[in-house]
Amino acid sequence: MSRTRIHNLAISLDGFATGEPQSAEAPFGHAGERLHEWMFGTRFWAVQAGGADTGGSEGVDNAFAERHSIGFGAEIMGANKFGPPGWQDDPDWKGWWGPNPPFHTPTFVLTHRPRPPMEMEGGTTFHFLDASPSDALGTARSAAHGQDVRIGGGPTVVRDFLAAGLVDQAHLVQVPILLGRGVRVWDGLEGLEDSYDVEVVASPSGVVHLTFTRKIGSS
Amino acid sequence: MSRTRIHNLAISLDGFATGEPQSAEAPFGHAGERLHEWMFGTRFWAVQAGGADTGGSEGVDNAFAERHSIGFGAEIMGANKFGPPGWQDDPDWKGWWGPNPPFHTPTFVLTHRPRPPMEMEGGTTFHFLDASPSDALGTARSAAHGQDVRIGGGPTVVRDFLAAGLVDQAHLVQVPILLGRGVRVWDGLEGLEDSYDVEVVASPSGVVHLTFTRKIGSS
Repeated sequence: MSRTRIHNLAISLDGFATGEPQSAEAPFGHAGERLHEWMFGTRFWAVQAGGADTGGSEGVDNAFAERHSIGFGAEIMGANKFGPPGWQDDPDWKGWWGPNPPFHTPTFVLTHRPRPPMEMEGGTTFHFLDASPSDALGTARSAAHGQDVRIGGGPTVVRDFLAAGLVDQAHLVQVPILLGRGVRVWDGLEGLEDSYDVEVVASPSGVVHLTFTRKIGSS
Repeated sequence: MSRTRIHNLAISLDGFATGEPQSAEAPFGHAGERLHEWMFGTRFWAVQAGGADTGGSEGVDNAFAERHSIGFGAEIMGANKFGPPGWQDDPDWKGWWGPNPPFHTPTFVLTHRPRPPMEMEGGTTFHFLDASPSDALGTARSAAHGQDVRIGGGPTVVRDFLAAGLVDQAHLVQVPILLGRGVRVWDGLEGLEDSYDVEVVASPSGVVHLTFTRKIGSS
């Protein structure tokens, strides 16, 4: 069965998944890369950056990080993940990731100003949709050919999909910093735990991995 | 050296230490007792409730919970911990805890409407102060006779003392529920981690214990 999953969404102790203001120079605003440092030390990251022999940790952080790549046939992301504010005015903007983005599947960008699809190297094609979470998921599900659909962020999109009850599994990584400002992921999700089994594990790196697995019969 | 410590402050995943609305019937609002269930299973709680032979867990939840009682010579609490909204209009209100409150030290209640001290059984005397965090701490420190001062909550008082840089050690317990509304503890504390060593440990009970220990030289 094709599931809808969230992986490696990093948040601060105070629940912000990105800082502010976001810009071309600072995609995560004042947070910089502080929410993602836990991942940079993993084998998952080393392999993405340079190949299989470049080291990296193989503990719990890596085990969770690797799940980001396993079993997906499509991704859905928000406009704020695809580019800095105003990217819709730049007809040449093709995302942050260069000619070979790390998605390798059809990737659906939610935006109120859609444009024609962009086929990139490595199997990624960006499609642009002005659609509700439910409709976007239907489209991505069809494109995934039986594999899972990743909700890739940012926090607003994650929140919208969780609030709509569309997510089967979510993995968040809580980093022990206080950002104070930015975009919160938890707003408007009172009682989310009623529909999910929640597990927490602290990593020796100092982060906490949170997993939400939808309870059987809860949909 | 007399230190200033916070213990057993329970918060939801979305950072609320109490729900809403608070009332005489519901001191924690819609949160009920959900933030404190982790503690009810411990030996610490059983001993408080009925004596030493009443069972209870003796693992990590209990180890942290017990620290609430060790080494303190005074407590400071906010008006919202001492009573429901409007308690200042009831001259007979003596707190939630009956004739023998669980503080057993001088206990300073911050309120803009002070009243004369109340001597209770078991060593607790309630004093009422209209004072800044810094001045209140000075008063409590003197009363503690070299022992530590507990900042007993609620979340607004905890936040004020953290923001003022007055806290040496803080222990919070993150419960895997989303309250959605209430009083947040983390607001306005951007960068708190710069002054503290932060440690996180997940308990088999499902909660996460967070400890903030002030870095040497950071005050």
